[in-house]
Amino acid sequence: MFPSKTYIERRYQLKKTLKSGLVIFPGNAESPMNYADNWYPFMQDSSFLYYTGINGIPNLYFLIDIDNDRDILFGNDATPEEMVWTGAAAPMADLAAKSGITSVKVVNELEAYVRQKKQKGQQIHYLSPYRADTKIRLAELLGIKLAEVDKNKSVNLIKAIVAQREIKSDEELVEIEKAVNTTVAMHTHAIKNTRPGRTELQIAGELQSIAIGGGGNIAFPIILTKNGQYLHVHATQNTLSEGDLVLCDCGAENAMGYTGDMTRTFPAGKKFNALQRNVYDIVLNAHNSAVAALKPGVHYKDLHLLAAKKLVEGLTDMGMMKGNADDAVAAGAHTLFFQCGLGHMMGLDIHDMENLGEHYVGYTPDLKKSTEFGLKSLRLGKALKENFVVTVEPGLYFNPFLIDAWRAEGKYTDFVNYDELEKMKNFGGIRVEEDFAITASGSRLLGKPLAKTPEAIEELKNS
Amino acid sequence: MFPSKTYIERRYQLKKTLKSGLVIFPGNAESPMNYADNWYPFMQDSSFLYYTGINGIPNLYFLIDIDNDRDILFGNDATPEEMVWTGAAAPMADLAAKSGITSVKVVNELEAYVRQKKQKGQQIHYLSPYRADTKIRLAELLGIKLAEVDKNKSVNLIKAIVAQREIKSDEELVEIEKAVNTTVAMHTHAIKNTRPGRTELQIAGELQSIAIGGGGNIAFPIILTKNGQYLHVHATQNTLSEGDLVLCDCGAENAMGYTGDMTRTFPAGKKFNALQRNVYDIVLNAHNSAVAALKPGVHYKDLHLLAAKKLVEGLTDMGMMKGNADDAVAAGAHTLFFQCGLGHMMGLDIHDMENLGEHYVGYTPDLKKSTEFGLKSLRLGKALKENFVVTVEPGLYFNPFLIDAWRAEGKYTDFVNYDELEKMKNFGGIRVEEDFAITASGSRLLGKPLAKTPEAIEELKNS
Ligand SMILES: [Mn+2]
Ligand SMILES: [Mn+2]
Repeated sequence: MFPSKTYIERRYQLKKTLKSGLVIFPGNAESPMNYADNWYPFMQDSSFLYYTGINGIPNLYFLIDIDNDRDILFGNDATPEEMVWTGAAAPMADLAAKSGITSVKVVNELEAYVRQKKQKGQQIHYLSPYRADTKIRLAELLGIKLAEVDKNKSVNLIKAIVAQREIKSDEELVEIEKAVNTTVAMHTHAIKNTRPGRTELQIAGELQSIAIGGGGNIAFPIILTKNGQYLHVHATQNTLSEGDLVLCDCGAENAMGYTGDMTRTFPAGKKFNALQRNVYDIVLNAHNSAVAALKPGVHYKDLHLLAAKKLVEGLTDMGMMKGNADDAVAAGAHTLFFQCGLGHMMGLDIHDMENLGEHYVGYTPDLKKSTEFGLKSLRLGKALKENFVVTVEPGLYFNPFLIDAWRAEGKYTDFVNYDELEKMKNFGGIRVEEDFAITASGSRLLGKPLAKTPEAIEELKNS
Repeated sequence: MFPSKTYIERRYQLKKTLKSGLVIFPGNAESPMNYADNWYPFMQDSSFLYYTGINGIPNLYFLIDIDNDRDILFGNDATPEEMVWTGAAAPMADLAAKSGITSVKVVNELEAYVRQKKQKGQQIHYLSPYRADTKIRLAELLGIKLAEVDKNKSVNLIKAIVAQREIKSDEELVEIEKAVNTTVAMHTHAIKNTRPGRTELQIAGELQSIAIGGGGNIAFPIILTKNGQYLHVHATQNTLSEGDLVLCDCGAENAMGYTGDMTRTFPAGKKFNALQRNVYDIVLNAHNSAVAALKPGVHYKDLHLLAAKKLVEGLTDMGMMKGNADDAVAAGAHTLFFQCGLGHMMGLDIHDMENLGEHYVGYTPDLKKSTEFGLKSLRLGKALKENFVVTVEPGLYFNPFLIDAWRAEGKYTDFVNYDELEKMKNFGGIRVEEDFAITASGSRLLGKPLAKTPEAIEELKNS
């Protein structure tokens, strides 16, 4: 936890922006796997965490009563009987004190408190819930129908939170860098311990153990696959073979909830083959070009298009594309190979604040999110600011279904040499991803540098 | 997956028992961590899995229309766009065929189908949901209020499922044994790799990697703690020290969803000290006594009380208890040290069928679950049958809060030497847990034998 003044200041800023009303942050509950008391690892809601710093405890609610200038933590101390099961737990009053929260109440006082404020006409601010149990609890609390919960969310609260959370403080950058360094350790292990004959899951399990050993857990399900041509394929029982290209996209969340997110692509065996290396160099060039252009004021969407152009140029050199690169990108022809976005913001969430709505987080009223294939998966389009944290993760994905479908449709025949692509239908996919803090004049790589060129990866593999 | 005839036969039995109505098994959906699209590892509902065998795919529904003798899988094939993200997915029709299900429909036909049957007066059978999103979906599907979902559950369906799932078939025992053997590998690793200076989470992470490498995952959150006196304390960032006693309770779930669940307690350093060894021997004797008595017809509650008596006798020998052991157990004095139950059924769930209600799973109309401290945590009381799978897991837990509270209350002073207990308030806890199949004449240990005596544990640690 940061010092209490961090949370006091964050709440002060939020109150100043919102000016009035009652803000409700429902903390997350335990999430059941296969019966009510068998739980997934607890994960606290990131906005609750941002304004309180209290991690690891389910069934809390945090209220900011702006009109009466009161911050209240609603939570129950463990009973002696509960302590038979869970041991000693810190009293709510101690947790609140660490966060600079002066008022603590038990949870069953919450509904009366909220109803009373509502009756007095106080505006209630809350975020649209992403978990069904939170939705039910909010509906009960507010005395509204389930269908109304999302409709009545507070857009002003969303905007106020985005304005705060998108700018990472120095103490946050330290925590993010810890998570990124655990992520670097995961990737180093993956590169060194991937060999023909091992299964994807064996390696993925080892990476998770590094994240857990680091005091947190994985920030998102591990992608570790010889089928990197599909964007979100998680590790499976596939056994790796000589010649396979392995795409590993994984990240740690640290004890405070901050995240890292990196991708490396490497051979299952000792070396890339010539074709793999060629394609890798195209992706790396796109990656490096986008990274070199990171700075305040630049629209991330333009970096996405810059990376797309570099990918097209490389594919054109290899004979898989043709024509003018700018025209190809303008037409969207690159989306046959690069179906997703260049990256996203990162912080307490791996896709930071995704639950607040991408058009509030990644776009502005003047720059709306595109609905086109490809661009509609770009989570961040707006101008970068100092102390944004973003990923840069271009890739080339040779998806046989898409190649066949678009060939059959005659799509982009001005730009795509489909005959040349036939040999790529078993190639797989390559992505290179790193995390950056935007500085006053450019960007700073987060975490210790990790092998990124084909040469460096081969050297690390064989070290 | 088992051959289709397994699932066809299971469904045939269920239809025969229920005779009429429409049975709805809602499969689980993805469970969000910190925003809608960042998911915990998918876990399918165990009853859905039992009757279909289809694992790993969210958002399915399985219906058995008994009156019209139709089994229908409701699920959507992946769209080409979805395959950009997830790769090729098996068509629903293929999955259904593997399970012997002849009818497949898309999910948006589900509501009309159910409503039509309901209007025709067909009885709707479903289980009480343990996830909030399932509850919402059932309420929508049936056109009822959230509060009515649990009330309208089908007790006949619960009883019919318990009668089937509690008896494990030979092919199920093979799968359970696979999960137990992965669990044995986890414990072997834990015993050998626990050392002073390592953190609980480092070791717990390694155990999870073994479960994942086995093709499944952990069946429940790993308990690996020097605070074994608290029953459900998970691994933390605590660093282990020479002299610490480490309690590790963990289990794997295999690729088909079957589980293992074992506990070992071992020194952080190379050897138990004399006191640890004395207490260990008491627990082991209670464990062995209960195991020796496992056989069809024996009430598991009586085994629980037998183990309790053995614990009391051992504590009496050590001077921590006094008086007649039977009287002490009858009075409940043992619950100061053994606050929980001797064990539970195990199968597709670690506490098998816990979501169906313990009084249906572990008790009978003639043997109701006790509400007393201690016995109320005993999940299984009823008579054992051949091919039940149960855990046996007695323990001694020196909980300082409970010792102080009961001493202050003057509780059980006829049976407890509180002065002698003062030295135990930092002792910790010891549990020994294994999994057994009930045979015609007794029981069979599941999985490869694992070091269980203090001598064998020390030998394994130092091997
Ligand atoms: Mn990313
Ligand atoms: Mn158990």
